[in-house]
Amino acid sequence: MRNPLRAAAAAACVFALIATPASSEEGMWTFDNFPAARMQRDLGWAPDQAWLDRVMAGAARLPGCSGSNVSANGLMLTNHHCITACLRNLSSEQSDFLAAGFTARTREEERRCPNYSISILTGITDVTQRIDTATAGVAADAFARTRDAEIARIESECTSGQIRCEVTTLYQGGRYALYNYKRYDDVRMVFAPEQQVAAFGGDPDNYNFPRYCLDFAILRVYENGAPAATPAHLSMRFTPVTEDEVVLAVGNPGTTSRSRTTAEMAFQRDIQLPWMLNVLSETRGRLIAYSELGPNQRRLGTNALQGVENLVKRFSGQRMSLVSAENFARVTAAEQDFQARVRRNSASAREVGDAWGEISRAQDTYRGMFYRHQMLEASAAQRSQLFGWARDLVRAAEERPKPDAQRMPRYTDARISVVERSITGAQPTETDFERLNLEIWLLKLREYLTVDDPTVQRILNRQSPEELAARLSQSRLGDPAVRRQLWEGGGAAIAASDDPMIVFVRSWDTDARQVREQFETQVEGPVARAHERIARARFRAFGTNTYPDATGTPRITYGRVRGWTEGTRTVPWFTNIDGLYARATNAEPFNLSQRWIDARGRVNGATVYNIATTTESVGGASGSPLLDREGRVVGASFDGNIHATAGTFFYDPTLNRTVTVTTTAMQAALRDVYGMNALLAELGGS
Amino acid sequence: MRNPLRAAAAAACVFALIATPASSEEGMWTFDNFPAARMQRDLGWAPDQAWLDRVMAGAARLPGCSGSNVSANGLMLTNHHCITACLRNLSSEQSDFLAAGFTARTREEERRCPNYSISILTGITDVTQRIDTATAGVAADAFARTRDAEIARIESECTSGQIRCEVTTLYQGGRYALYNYKRYDDVRMVFAPEQQVAAFGGDPDNYNFPRYCLDFAILRVYENGAPAATPAHLSMRFTPVTEDEVVLAVGNPGTTSRSRTTAEMAFQRDIQLPWMLNVLSETRGRLIAYSELGPNQRRLGTNALQGVENLVKRFSGQRMSLVSAENFARVTAAEQDFQARVRRNSASAREVGDAWGEISRAQDTYRGMFYRHQMLEASAAQRSQLFGWARDLVRAAEERPKPDAQRMPRYTDARISVVERSITGAQPTETDFERLNLEIWLLKLREYLTVDDPTVQRILNRQSPEELAARLSQSRLGDPAVRRQLWEGGGAAIAASDDPMIVFVRSWDTDARQVREQFETQVEGPVARAHERIARARFRAFGTNTYPDATGTPRITYGRVRGWTEGTRTVPWFTNIDGLYARATNAEPFNLSQRWIDARGRVNGATVYNIATTTESVGGASGSPLLDREGRVVGASFDGNIHATAGTFFYDPTLNRTVTVTTTAMQAALRDVYGMNALLAELGGS
Repeated sequence: MRNPLRAAAAAACVFALIATPASSEEGMWTFDNFPAARMQRDLGWAPDQAWLDRVMAGAARLPGCSGSNVSANGLMLTNHHCITACLRNLSSEQSDFLAAGFTARTREEERRCPNYSISILTGITDVTQRIDTATAGVAADAFARTRDAEIARIESECTSGQIRCEVTTLYQGGRYALYNYKRYDDVRMVFAPEQQVAAFGGDPDNYNFPRYCLDFAILRVYENGAPAATPAHLSMRFTPVTEDEVVLAVGNPGTTSRSRTTAEMAFQRDIQLPWMLNVLSETRGRLIAYSELGPNQRRLGTNALQGVENLVKRFSGQRMSLVSAENFARVTAAEQDFQARVRRNSASAREVGDAWGEISRAQDTYRGMFYRHQMLEASAAQRSQLFGWARDLVRAAEERPKPDAQRMPRYTDARISVVERSITGAQPTETDFERLNLEIWLLKLREYLTVDDPTVQRILNRQSPEELAARLSQSRLGDPAVRRQLWEGGGAAIAASDDPMIVFVRSWDTDARQVREQFETQVEGPVARAHERIARARFRAFGTNTYPDATGTPRITYGRVRGWTEGTRTVPWFTNIDGLYARATNAEPFNLSQRWIDARGRVNGATVYNIATTTESVGGASGSPLLDREGRVVGASFDGNIHATAGTFFYDPTLNRTVTVTTTAMQAALRDVYGMNALLAELGGS
Repeated sequence: MRNPLRAAAAAACVFALIATPASSEEGMWTFDNFPAARMQRDLGWAPDQAWLDRVMAGAARLPGCSGSNVSANGLMLTNHHCITACLRNLSSEQSDFLAAGFTARTREEERRCPNYSISILTGITDVTQRIDTATAGVAADAFARTRDAEIARIESECTSGQIRCEVTTLYQGGRYALYNYKRYDDVRMVFAPEQQVAAFGGDPDNYNFPRYCLDFAILRVYENGAPAATPAHLSMRFTPVTEDEVVLAVGNPGTTSRSRTTAEMAFQRDIQLPWMLNVLSETRGRLIAYSELGPNQRRLGTNALQGVENLVKRFSGQRMSLVSAENFARVTAAEQDFQARVRRNSASAREVGDAWGEISRAQDTYRGMFYRHQMLEASAAQRSQLFGWARDLVRAAEERPKPDAQRMPRYTDARISVVERSITGAQPTETDFERLNLEIWLLKLREYLTVDDPTVQRILNRQSPEELAARLSQSRLGDPAVRRQLWEGGGAAIAASDDPMIVFVRSWDTDARQVREQFETQVEGPVARAHERIARARFRAFGTNTYPDATGTPRITYGRVRGWTEGTRTVPWFTNIDGLYARATNAEPFNLSQRWIDARGRVNGATVYNIATTTESVGGASGSPLLDREGRVVGASFDGNIHATAGTFFYDPTLNRTVTVTTTAMQAALRDVYGMNALLAELGGS
């Protein structure tokens, strides 16, 4: 980890904005708009269409993560931190796979991850025209609903069986594309190292480089009970990369806000990020303490804690990048330049109208309902599984009888299978941990909405948050059979249920839906409508020679293997395994497992371990295969340096780096530490 | 509690700035510069000098709080929340005075608060000329040290026995005044209600109004083992106040930043407040969990938690007031107006020079050392008593042999008795709680300074924060005899000590002193030097018809008993005891003690309970007597409404309110709930 304050101060160097054509090595591009000419010009080489098609077919989308298909029999490479939930679900009091690692030495030992699926992109179709036609002349307050209804129609027409179709909104509404995926629902754990070495250095080293993490894991997708045939897989390369080598990465970066307006960035800087940081920091304190209560609590608490600490560091970095007066002045200047350019083109000016003003006013409106929208709807009890199931059950029962296009987007025919799998799948819950998460939410709800708010009074019903959380955590929804019964029973079953969580959700869902609708009509719709116009003006000004903000869908980014210099300090491009041993102490999170201590004599300490590259990444891109010019996998990207947190808003080619665990490190680990030679051979190594 | 976001949005109304002459009812004035003419003009009445002298003699300064002398035999009225530390220290596993209240029905039952003193201001002398002479021609980097040396000389010449002398820096250095106090070191607990009713509504109702807190307590000062003779005491009035009645309050408001520059406010907004909020929020989470571990932990943890939650709410309110673009634009405009005014006067312009630029550059410098200065020095292990004692022991041993004027200010002859009392006095510590507080600090230290920082490496010495905290908490410094021995043994005893905490502090105090010196020479000195010049220009422009920022020293403020209106909501000026019973539930923090439940039939529900006034208050003013025109005490102020948190930077007469528990409520409680009739009679009531 590096000091985010110093980081942001140092970040006041050259960076480009998405508003203007991207600078060299910047951008997370869609597969159908790759800037081959620019890459050729800047790096002296670029992939052709066949290369892009091949790589697209080998790249995978995991829940909140990325990965790659690396064998003909369905092996998938991703990050360890992407599959900790599966390891936790497979663990018991007898065997803790997070602590001990997971090593399936035969097919029979490969174990299925509950409620887990992996998708591979098979095609992209532009559907902008259809959305435009459906929303033509629709007012801003009805826009989100009309657009979502058309999206539901498009997705439902396409989805069937294992084909999953999703409409992705690109360029903040400038373009809509239908993405088709092939989905694998039977995913099994093959190999994971001990979390100690996968996440070596823990939170202190998160977003840090030089870095020493073996953050990879291997899964396998199955079809009909047998390993899936995946002939379109990528190959792995086990020779080390070199400094300045050209590399590309393919993954599903989650969200960036580079083409957001300065009013939206100011809202992030002043309201949303500080609020999230406060709530997360308090949650962090609760989770640290919870993890100390016993081994079971440690297992549950530590996992949640890692997610929270990662967000705290990421959001801190983002906030610091926005409070830099220099950064903000630059964004403002770019926005003003673009506005001036729009004004000079009368067609653009007419079309855009007062889009920036509309967005700014929508931010002010959102400010007045922000806590309400977050606490009752967007972030309501977000860490409680019981609440999530109950809300889905209550809402699905209400939504399913409606015509598809009138439903909330989550419950349309094309998307409801995700909900159904979550409801009916096996997923352990822990009463104790549920109680904690519900209590935290209820305490913050009361704090931010106040005791005197009518919805808060309806929710608490003269109970303390602590009492209510304890009562709700006794819900029977932890039992999949109970959930299935309610799912199948529909509205009548929900109305008849006396389960405390169902009764609870039912009792104030009207309030939650109301704030949801206010948000849609007064904030989301107007902002989307305005951004659509800005995006079109941008195409008119700059052509399509730009990339859209990240949307959690497949993207490709290119760059080089390279360290960086800040102030007087030069950070080299790689670490080796000797460095891991040198940094290790006996104290968590810098301790090593016995396996690694014992293997010291066998492992080649000079093996290139983690590397820095100028390829871009943001949360969601974890597990992205890093590729060489031949399209061979040379590593799995798992993090950025601290400057990469600013990547949500800006890209700074001098400082922003992605961090990757190399295939050479994987090889050394599988062969010399874990003795997984058969697996290594299946991956093409030795 | 009210929603701080909505509060700050609503706060965008009229308010005045300290840069310009104060608006009606604004200001926390010194006793030697009371704006009698203005008050007379605005409110139709003002006190004369005799009135002010009488009130000054009856007002008291408590550690971090305020109070008043309300009987001839040393009774002192303050807030319950000002004396919870004493109640905690007096409690044992057998008797928990926080839960049960404290009711001394005879003198013999009055119990001494360990290491506690109360002071009464006896005189004010202007010493600006002495400081100016001493610092004439001294460069900015040496300024803080030279000024502090002269302050030490002035204080030492004056201090003797129970006379405590303190030089107070007013108007950010525009004026220096020597304050003389008579100090009482034997302070005993007489009466405290149950914390349940004193802090009814807990954190959710903090900064809220309408309010229902019996937040008062009675202490008594002793001299030579007998109640002190205090003939100059104030009288209490037990008839209710009325709406719009003129009132005044006298107390020791801690800190405001109204005459700080916009560069300093931006630093607060962007760096310091968000950082404090994150650290406090995480600490809050730890303390909530700690409090649940058992009754002993609950006693310790709850007390600390209340302090933390109060700061979280206050700092949140402050931050929201600064992120309001409207507020910040107003401050900026006022600063620019004043700068223009200075430029028009060539003498002022010459004297001021680039003061604003110097302050702004010092903020940038501070940004680069902020975490280091906070973590190693200003906020180092601030919740650990063991660390505090060890640092005082190590530093005092090094400082005491030096000539007085060369010592760190805390260890000069005039001030060292405070340190000595803390070192040698009895003060229980809890190993477990020490461990927790040390661990939190060490974790944040590592996070904000990073693992790779050389001082962090020196501090941790390859141990985890958890291990190190556990080891340090085993220090023997909890034993007052051990501390006394080290105190008396001086440098030799410190050098020879193998106590883990002494060894620890010794091992990196050089690093801490270094960052302290950097701060003094590069930030504190330059800022003070520049503010001194700005303050003089301000006197030249506006005369002395202004009040200085709050400095934790006695001030007087005036206003009226009054509610307020925001949006469509009008908040009445008072609550009554019926309202308390109506708001009560069985759930903490809205539950009532059995005594109050039993007393319902005896207490007059129409009794005026808490009131709102336009008198100003900020943290430190808690316990201030609220006075009527006759100088009689009509209540003890204990809080502000949520808009009062913005009072650090601005005063908004339409919204900023102080909250006070009335003497009528005290009378009803003492007589009808607690049966403390003798005490009530001594207070002049019945």
